[in-house]
Amino acid sequence: MTDKSRRDMKARASRLSGQVAGIGRMIDEDRYCVDILHQIAAARSALDALGLKLLTGHLESCVLGHGTPTAHVDTAEMSREQLLEEVRTVLAGFLK
Amino acid sequence: MTDKSRRDMKARASRLSGQVAGIGRMIDEDRYCVDILHQIAAARSALDALGLKLLTGHLESCVLGHGTPTAHVDTAEMSREQLLEEVRTVLAGFLK
Amino acid sequence: MTDKSRRDMKARASRLSGQVAGIGRMIDEDRYCVDILHQIAAARSALDALGLKLLTGHLESCVLGHGTPTAHVDTAEMSREQLLEEVRTVLAGFLK
Amino acid sequence: MTDKSRRDMKARASRLSGQVAGIGRMIDEDRYCVDILHQIAAARSALDALGLKLLTGHLESCVLGHGTPTAHVDTAEMSREQLLEEVRTVLAGFLK
Repeated sequence: MTDKSRRDMKARASRLSGQVAGIGRMIDEDRYCVDILHQIAAARSALDALGLKLLTGHLESCVLGHGTPTAHVDTAEMSREQLLEEVRTVLAGFLK
Repeated sequence: MTDKSRRDMKARASRLSGQVAGIGRMIDEDRYCVDILHQIAAARSALDALGLKLLTGHLESCVLGHGTPTAHVDTAEMSREQLLEEVRTVLAGFLK
Repeated sequence: MTDKSRRDMKARASRLSGQVAGIGRMIDEDRYCVDILHQIAAARSALDALGLKLLTGHLESCVLGHGTPTAHVDTAEMSREQLLEEVRTVLAGFLK
Repeated sequence: MTDKSRRDMKARASRLSGQVAGIGRMIDEDRYCVDILHQIAAARSALDALGLKLLTGHLESCVLGHGTPTAHVDTAEMSREQLLEEVRTVLAGFLK
């Protein structure tokens, strides 16, 4: 991940935390269900957008091999078949 | 909403805040993308489950008219057509 | 269901059959994956739109009790709790 | 795409056509909405599974460059950035 895309990702995650905290407050305050449901749908779209960013970043840096291994997982030791299988599993989790 | 289902909803929202904060931390710590993506898919399922609870609660209490109006919206003043139209819009937001 | 909404539903189902047949042909002809994937996403949106129509029609006619029972299921014999539970299960199938 | 995965894809597309035709018949016969909705959710899962197969096949053969160009699009002439951008757009279509 480049510094720029990591900053973007952090900003998205922090906005998302705000959205979810807002949903909790709306429930506490017994707000109208339909208004809460719209906030839930918005948070879901934000989560999907964050996931899409991460996934395409992952395809670019790890699967296509342009990237440096992270401190946590040395993807250079994984075969392309293993990397693709991971991507398949992750996508299945989003589409299920 | 009954007290029991409001307590359940609050507990779900608070767990969800924890999940989303965890996702933010994983990004900060530059954790492996695939692990973050699994957490994002889990948070999305939790959001959907919360939305489903709220929606069926709404159908029961407001649309079917068993409930008392909330402090915020007097659904007794809304026609069934208006209430159904709201539900249709909310569902479209989840399925889009 | 009114005659008008039944005609609309039939028209949607028939368009959808055409879309799905088109996807089958694209696979037979070994067309470019990305083009097929866009058709699959379009068919999925059409399915969701059909589902949304049916679901709101069902809420209106069966759950809210404006409708006449169909030849196949006498919903008048079902309690609102049973009807709501059915709706919850169906929605969970779409959101899972 | 290998012959084996093309055969698998064709078999899936043909089963899907059968499912969608069945949904059309259920509407024609005025069957119970909830039963039709379950069939719609099943067709949606089948579409997603087909999309997932195609997408991982595409990542493997075109994006990772193991494959031969199809008769229709010469992906060897596309840069990895263009291929990734296509994948991003397709995924966004599924997650939206």
